Amino acid sequence: MTTVKLWTDAEADAVPRVKAVFDDIRATRRSDFINNFWRGLANQPTALERTWASLKEIMAADGALDPLTKELIYIAVSVANGCSYCIHSHTAAARGKGMTEAQHGELLAVIGMACETNALVTTMQIPVDPEFQA
Amino acid sequence: MTTVKLWTDAEADAVPRVKAVFDDIRATRRSDFINNFWRGLANQPTALERTWASLKEIMAADGALDPLTKELIYIAVSVANGCSYCIHSHTAAARGKGMTEAQHGELLAVIGMACETNALVTTMQIPVDPEFQA
Amino acid sequence: MTTVKLWTDAEADAVPRVKAVFDDIRATRRSDFINNFWRGLANQPTALERTWASLKEIMAADGALDPLTKELIYIAVSVANGCSYCIHSHTAAARGKGMTEAQHGELLAVIGMACETNALVTTMQIPVDPEFQA
Amino acid sequence: MTTVKLWTDAEADAVPRVKAVFDDIRATRRSDFINNFWRGLANQPTALERTWASLKEIMAADGALDPLTKELIYIAVSVANGCSYCIHSHTAAARGKGMTEAQHGELLAVIGMACETNALVTTMQIPVDPEFQA
Amino acid sequence: MTTVKLWTDAEADAVPRVKAVFDDIRATRRSDFINNFWRGLANQPTALERTWASLKEIMAADGALDPLTKELIYIAVSVANGCSYCIHSHTAAARGKGMTEAQHGELLAVIGMACETNALVTTMQIPVDPEFQA
Amino acid sequence: MTTVKLWTDAEADAVPRVKAVFDDIRATRRSDFINNFWRGLANQPTALERTWASLKEIMAADGALDPLTKELIYIAVSVANGCSYCIHSHTAAARGKGMTEAQHGELLAVIGMACETNALVTTMQIPVDPEFQA
Repeated sequence: MTTVKLWTDAEADAVPRVKAVFDDIRATRRSDFINNFWRGLANQPTALERTWASLKEIMAADGALDPLTKELIYIAVSVANGCSYCIHSHTAAARGKGMTEAQHGELLAVIGMACETNALVTTMQIPVDPEFQA
Repeated sequence: MTTVKLWTDAEADAVPRVKAVFDDIRATRRSDFINNFWRGLANQPTALERTWASLKEIMAADGALDPLTKELIYIAVSVANGCSYCIHSHTAAARGKGMTEAQHGELLAVIGMACETNALVTTMQIPVDPEFQA
Repeated sequence: MTTVKLWTDAEADAVPRVKAVFDDIRATRRSDFINNFWRGLANQPTALERTWASLKEIMAADGALDPLTKELIYIAVSVANGCSYCIHSHTAAARGKGMTEAQHGELLAVIGMACETNALVTTMQIPVDPEFQA
Repeated sequence: MTTVKLWTDAEADAVPRVKAVFDDIRATRRSDFINNFWRGLANQPTALERTWASLKEIMAADGALDPLTKELIYIAVSVANGCSYCIHSHTAAARGKGMTEAQHGELLAVIGMACETNALVTTMQIPVDPEFQA
Repeated sequence: MTTVKLWTDAEADAVPRVKAVFDDIRATRRSDFINNFWRGLANQPTALERTWASLKEIMAADGALDPLTKELIYIAVSVANGCSYCIHSHTAAARGKGMTEAQHGELLAVIGMACETNALVTTMQIPVDPEFQA
Repeated sequence: MTTVKLWTDAEADAVPRVKAVFDDIRATRRSDFINNFWRGLANQPTALERTWASLKEIMAADGALDPLTKELIYIAVSVANGCSYCIHSHTAAARGKGMTEAQHGELLAVIGMACETNALVTTMQIPVDPEFQA
């Protein structure tokens, strides 16, 4: 159960600011599907507009990192933050952008290894080597 | 300050199991530099051997993900876990593997965006859409 | 599913220490409703007494912060810790203490923004400005 | 040590997009002081612009939550995320907006209590009561 | 719902590397039961082998810490990381190794107290006393 | 640097409620040393009294878990929460209660393993087996 209302298409269509974002999500993704995240965020049109604008800009195709790499990073962060919804939505997005099972398996291994060594380092309170200075 | 001793080269040379791992780190990385993480882990030769073997296998060059992508994922996890040492060491490693400033900038943006939307989703307790089913 | 038993009213009534806490919760909140958290904690009467005493003292109405502000802070922490139960219970409590949809929307935005800038700062490993010294 | 360069005023003045944001931060805050966060983010003008625009909008004075309450929420999230820099900068900001020692003390107590009950709930895996349904 | 397939016994039997691990889990635990974690990890035989080998070595009976203490530590970490599955599986394992209700109650109290004081320390940004130097 | 004042002995002696707690800490621990955590918490006498009373009760010697086991659990939680101060203070406490290097090494390994498998489980979103039901 959610702590906010999830907007239906009919409700979104009745509020121009929400409708404009939903229309742009559909156009950008070339799909009619609007996932629940946006239907919840619709309760706050300002946050909806700002979040979609930021996400569209950051995850856009023509950056220095390719779209699949960005999805893998997104999944990694979502795992470390324990966000089940985000793990599901970005794993689906990564598969949609071509992630293979072998790549998913390596992602899994790298995330696990990173969490393990993060913990080992923190338990031992290892100081940063001067060689790592930027 | 650490909670364990950081081993010097002289101390490592005196314990064959530790020396063997340090030698393999140097050979694999083609560098004499042994960073503090391994000098701390040397207190537990079994953990040292297991961790190095796992890391070497997982971060190896010839997988389904390229070495730089794995470093970016490692940084992302380390940020979400708040491990300062790991952020420094893997940012240095990513730069060593060719990460550009533009790529670092996009990594920064994706990590920030993921943490923000993770939090928005969690605040609203959004349910997973059935469309994301594996 | 839980890892401990959730106590029914009949079970609570049979143990004087548990009954005393449940009675005080009901009297303090002017409601018969005892939520599951307390029904789980009842397995450890000492922890039940201590936790209720602390919570009652900390969340009391006549402090330097008003009760609604305390609930908003509670939600924020629970989101960052990913505690679904606590997000639900304290969002309900905040609504009971007058939180409007507009306030909930701003809470959402502040939590999201804080998580994003926390991550940006951590990725860049920004040093504390001397101007922030207490 | 940082993983990115911290921009000096001279460097910022030489890049119009960065200068424009720094000028707006100074004008909005009525202070010449630019803290290190922005000096690090200056490496990515797009992220700098987007983050400042979002922060300015979200933390603005005339919302449904007052500015001090927003700072308290910001501190709470930063504590749960373990972001030392953000704890310092937003504690300073809260003091600048009138936070008293008594209010800081209650903030401390609420954050501590929330972290404790989050952990108790998670250990017991307590299910959400239907009464908390939105 | 999972992001990967959970392998059935029939599927596991058809892949020698997976079958070998499943057989060893059954032999080591003297039980036919293979829990879902291993059925998911079976998608990546290398990760399956490495993880089982590490877990078997670390959680083995004849170390410096007794098996029940290791399970309590495992639960504590899983709570702090918010891993519901791991809390359930290791609470069951701890009970299987003799954890009493009184011990579970004290574990609960220590985890809660640690999370509270961790948060208090972090809010106040307390510096490490030189007396704690290793 | 801290966000609150650290109280000196002279300052503590001048406030009876603070003095009483400091005296009891010294008597309970049979040591004159008061670590910085309590010197910071002294700013809020109510929180100081409540926290010391809870800690004393929870960490007391004669429970169902022995004092060293409780310290190991405390360290594990502090690592997962990334609380450097708490890792240092409770590692020192554990050593004071007899923790050997071999035990510290196993603690390290269990914490690392738990963080790794927590992450693997979360990435795969593994459902809880019905066999783990309490």
